Amino acid sequence: MPRSIADSALLSRSVVPRDVAFSGSRVDRADHLRNNPQALADLAARGRLLRMDGLDPVLDDADEYGNLSLAFGMAAEVDAGTELLFLGILPDGRGCFAAVPHTSSASVSPPGPRLWRVLAFLPPEELALYGAARSLAGWHARHRFCAQCGSPTQLARGGWQRNCLNEACRAEHYPRTDPVVIMSVEHEGRLLLGRQPRFPPQRFSTLAGFVEPGEALEEAVAREVWEEAGVRVSAVHYVTSQPWPFPASLMIGCHAIATSAELTIDTTELEEARWFSRDEVAEAMAAAERGEEGKAFIAPPRHAVAWHLLGHWLDGGA
Amino acid sequence: MPRSIADSALLSRSVVPRDVAFSGSRVDRADHLRNNPQALADLAARGRLLRMDGLDPVLDDADEYGNLSLAFGMAAEVDAGTELLFLGILPDGRGCFAAVPHTSSASVSPPGPRLWRVLAFLPPEELALYGAARSLAGWHARHRFCAQCGSPTQLARGGWQRNCLNEACRAEHYPRTDPVVIMSVEHEGRLLLGRQPRFPPQRFSTLAGFVEPGEALEEAVAREVWEEAGVRVSAVHYVTSQPWPFPASLMIGCHAIATSAELTIDTTELEEARWFSRDEVAEAMAAAERGEEGKAFIAPPRHAVAWHLLGHWLDGGA
Repeated sequence: MPRSIADSALLSRSVVPRDVAFSGSRVDRADHLRNNPQALADLAARGRLLRMDGLDPVLDDADEYGNLSLAFGMAAEVDAGTELLFLGILPDGRGCFAAVPHTSSASVSPPGPRLWRVLAFLPPEELALYGAARSLAGWHARHRFCAQCGSPTQLARGGWQRNCLNEACRAEHYPRTDPVVIMSVEHEGRLLLGRQPRFPPQRFSTLAGFVEPGEALEEAVAREVWEEAGVRVSAVHYVTSQPWPFPASLMIGCHAIATSAELTIDTTELEEARWFSRDEVAEAMAAAERGEEGKAFIAPPRHAVAWHLLGHWLDGGA
Repeated sequence: MPRSIADSALLSRSVVPRDVAFSGSRVDRADHLRNNPQALADLAARGRLLRMDGLDPVLDDADEYGNLSLAFGMAAEVDAGTELLFLGILPDGRGCFAAVPHTSSASVSPPGPRLWRVLAFLPPEELALYGAARSLAGWHARHRFCAQCGSPTQLARGGWQRNCLNEACRAEHYPRTDPVVIMSVEHEGRLLLGRQPRFPPQRFSTLAGFVEPGEALEEAVAREVWEEAGVRVSAVHYVTSQPWPFPASLMIGCHAIATSAELTIDTTELEEARWFSRDEVAEAMAAAERGEEGKAFIAPPRHAVAWHLLGHWLDGGA
């Protein structure tokens, strides 16, 4: 099917409702080329390689204005035996690739403050490209064997599939994307926020949890709020979404209405949870915008979808 | 954390916006018990076993009114060595379990018409319970080995985790839930529907596809509509969601506005795609309600979230 790269690259910018981090990639994923080994080889011969240190980003030196950007090499220069991932076609028409790390020890945990300081300075479309590469490369590094029979697997379709090499099994495996519900919960004009033990002091954020097999999104929201805070909800509305590459989540942001305010905290998940007034949330977000700490609490970081959920609620969204 | 089973079981019925098949389970998943082997053993000793034939449901004989229901046995009666899944606590307070099939050859394909005729007669809460059991049991049957190192894995946390038995690896694995976007696409009062080659004759339904790593939901909708039909969209709105246990999808139903009507079909995915008028869609759904074939096309089945997307559009939802 013929397609215009420029048209395709414009797609995503217009449909994401808010400027959430890790969305807004300008790469055309060009699914129709993934099954075409010759086209992929031709693209790789002159294509760019998104350089990573394991799964961490590698950056170019800052330009004269101090702007950072992702470092690229040539896809043709990787060692023989390195698995290459076809990320798509860049706005300049060149193929974009990444390499699977040689060890599976790459972390699946969220990055620390040092990495976040780097990521915060990347342009949004580069952050989105890096996030996709990190999720996909991490999945390959952790899936070199067949979960069904234990035999080695081999990369296929430009990195969007792995196939079991055991002739008697031949299972096909696909990259994981794990849906997570994350929700602002309101009761009589106040918002429920909680603290995980790993948070920095005074940081509060929205509750969240993985969607389980057999649940609609709305059911997962109700279950998580009940499990973590002992609060029941009567209505759940979708707000926005975000790809979250630590390691491969799809954050699905919702707003829920609680039927009561009394909290029973699950202390294995949360250190504390409290209701905050509209003024407290507004002050915390305004303080964060100025690079300061809020009075009642420290708001979630701007790269988190929780930031957008708080903003949506302050803007009057239900 | 103390909790009322009755309260918890009522949760899900009130928050799912539409009566979508496979949602509305009345089982309390009781996450707080999954890490408690003694509590699970006590529940299993007098708990119920949701009987399955591989991954297919086993039904009791119809009662005097012809109603069908799932067949249950006793969890304590399974063979030694059978892996038991803790599905949660039933409204009567008893634990509910299912067994992992001994072979991994259980199908990952959607069931055929014969199975659908059976499923269509189950009460909604039983269909939801069966769907969760099928997704979870199928995942275990296909994940007896560690994708990271190839060693055998062992069930943990009542079936909500598997752990690698290789001391040098120790990777933890979690059940998959694969997010899928499925979308009604509108242009000047007409709706875009397509035919997959495997559909029965004259059946048309909404386009759909898996969300990929590095995409927001809205971006996945735009990419799929572009890939499959060559149409760009300018706005995407969430409508509803559905757990879909073939094998473990989370269907995320959206509505999108197309910027033009010209179609370029990806014939590897679709046999045909066309724009249908409001009258044609209304007639096809009314015909389906009467058990008849629509004039312009045959509507998607009621158990599919596509049915609800068409209904939402006819009701004036955007």
